[in-house]
Amino acid sequence: MFISFEGIDGSGKSTQAHLLAEALRGRGHDVVLTREPGGSPGAEEIRRLVLEGDPERWSAQTEILLFTAARRDHLERVIQPALEAGRIVICDRFADSTRMYQGLSRGDLRAVVDQLQTLMIGREPDLTILIDIDPATGLSRARGRQGHEERFEDFGLGLQEKMRAGFLDLAREYAARFAVIDGARAPERVAQDVLECAAARL
Amino acid sequence: MFISFEGIDGSGKSTQAHLLAEALRGRGHDVVLTREPGGSPGAEEIRRLVLEGDPERWSAQTEILLFTAARRDHLERVIQPALEAGRIVICDRFADSTRMYQGLSRGDLRAVVDQLQTLMIGREPDLTILIDIDPATGLSRARGRQGHEERFEDFGLGLQEKMRAGFLDLAREYAARFAVIDGARAPERVAQDVLECAAARL
Ligand SMILES: Nc1ncnc2c1ncn2[C@@H]1O[C@H](COP(=O)(O)OP(=O)(O)O)[C@@H](O)[C@H]1O
Ligand SMILES: Nc1ncnc2c1ncn2[C@@H]1O[C@H](COP(=O)(O)OP(=O)(O)O)[C@@H](O)[C@H]1O
Ligand SMILES: [Mg+2]
Ligand SMILES: [Mg+2]
Repeated sequence: MFISFEGIDGSGKSTQAHLLAEALRGRGHDVVLTREPGGSPGAEEIRRLVLEGDPERWSAQTEILLFTAARRDHLERVIQPALEAGRIVICDRFADSTRMYQGLSRGDLRAVVDQLQTLMIGREPDLTILIDIDPATGLSRARGRQGHEERFEDFGLGLQEKMRAGFLDLAREYAARFAVIDGARAPERVAQDVLECAAARL
Repeated sequence: MFISFEGIDGSGKSTQAHLLAEALRGRGHDVVLTREPGGSPGAEEIRRLVLEGDPERWSAQTEILLFTAARRDHLERVIQPALEAGRIVICDRFADSTRMYQGLSRGDLRAVVDQLQTLMIGREPDLTILIDIDPATGLSRARGRQGHEERFEDFGLGLQEKMRAGFLDLAREYAARFAVIDGARAPERVAQDVLECAAARL
C-alpha cells in the first residue's frame, strides 16, 4: 500500500504523515516514511540542485525534468523495493505536487507534467490524502515552522489560493484514490480521520 | 545554423568541432562552439552529477532524464539565444549521443529517449556530422588522450562496435541532416571534408 500526502505549504502534511506512520506501526504494520522531492540519496542530490540558488536558475521545463529524475530514482530505490517487500509506504508529497507546483505556477505545464509522469514514472499512490486548509492559515503556520527551503519560499497568498483550488480539482479528477481531509482542526483530530481513511483501505 | 558532431569515443569529434569553428571564424562567421553533456552553467552541474561516482549510481532511465534536463537548459540558455542572434552553433555531441549511449547501452531505451526528445527538446541540428571510425582506432586514440571521464570510461570494444553501427543506422534514419565522414585519415584531411559539408549548407 502506497499512501501520499498532498496539500499546500503549512497544511500539515509532514505532521500527519509522521502521525500516520506512528499509528500504523502501533498496529503492527511495517511502515516506510519518506518524502519528496528527495527520499533516496540520488534524489536528495537532485533536490539540492533544484532548491538551492537563484529562483530563475532553472526554467519550469528543466525543473520538471529534474523533479521527474529525482522521482524515478526515489521510486526505483526506495518505494518499489519497500512495496515489493510488503511494507506500507507513506510519502510526504509525490507526483501531484509536481502537477500543481511545476504544472501551474509558471504557465500551464500540466500536460507536460502528465506526459512525463506517464512515460517515466507510471505509478500513482493507492491512496492520496489531501489536507485541505485555507492559505492564510497555512502561510502563518509555515512561517512559524523552523527550517526553510530557499527557492520556493513565500509563493504568496494568491498563488497558494490557486494551488489549493488546483489540489481540490485534482481530487475530483482522481476521485478513486483521493481523500480530502479538513486540516483546520487540531492535529489529533485530523490524524483520527487520516487513520480511518487509511485503515478502511488496508 | 546548428551543427552537431557525433561518433564514438576517439573518433575525433572534439578535434573537428574545434577545427570547423576556427575555419568558419576565418571566413568571418560568428561561431559558438559548445558541447554536451554540459554547455551551460546549469547543464555542467547536472553533467557532474551524472558523470561522477559509481557506475550503478543512476538507472538508465534516471540518467536519460538528467541528460534531457541538461540538454533543455543548454538549449534554452546557450543554443537558442545564439541561433536567434544569427550565430552558427557547433555542438560537440547532442541528442543523437543520448539516442545511442543511453538508448542502446543498457537495454533498449531508444523509444523512451525519442519520446523525451520530442516532448522536452524538439530541436534537432540542421547538420549532424558523424565522424566514422573503427572502434579499435577510436579506443587507442581515446586512451592516448588526456583527461578522463569517470563513469563512461572503457565501454569496451564490443559496445563501441554496437555504437558505431547504431550511429550509421541513425545516419540512414535521419539522412536529410546527417553527413558521414571517414575519420581514419589525418585531421586536416577530415577537416577539409567537414568544412565542405558545412559550407554547402550555409
Ligand atoms: N492541525 C494543526 N494545527 C495547528 N498547527 C499545525 C497543525 N498541523 C501542523 N501544524 C504546525 O504547522 C506547521 C506546518 O505543519 P507541517 O506539517 O510542517 O505542514 P506541511 O508539511 O504541510 O508544510 C508546523 O509548525 C506544525 O507543527
Ligand atoms: N584524424 C586523427 N588522426 C589521429 N589522431 C586524431 C585524429 N583526430 C583526433 N585525434 C586524436 O585522437 C584523440 C581523440 O580525439 P578527440 O577529438 O578527442 O575525439 P572525440 O572527441 O571524438 O572523443 C585526441 O588525442 C586527438 O588529438
Ligand atoms: Mg512538510
Ligand atoms: Mg570529445
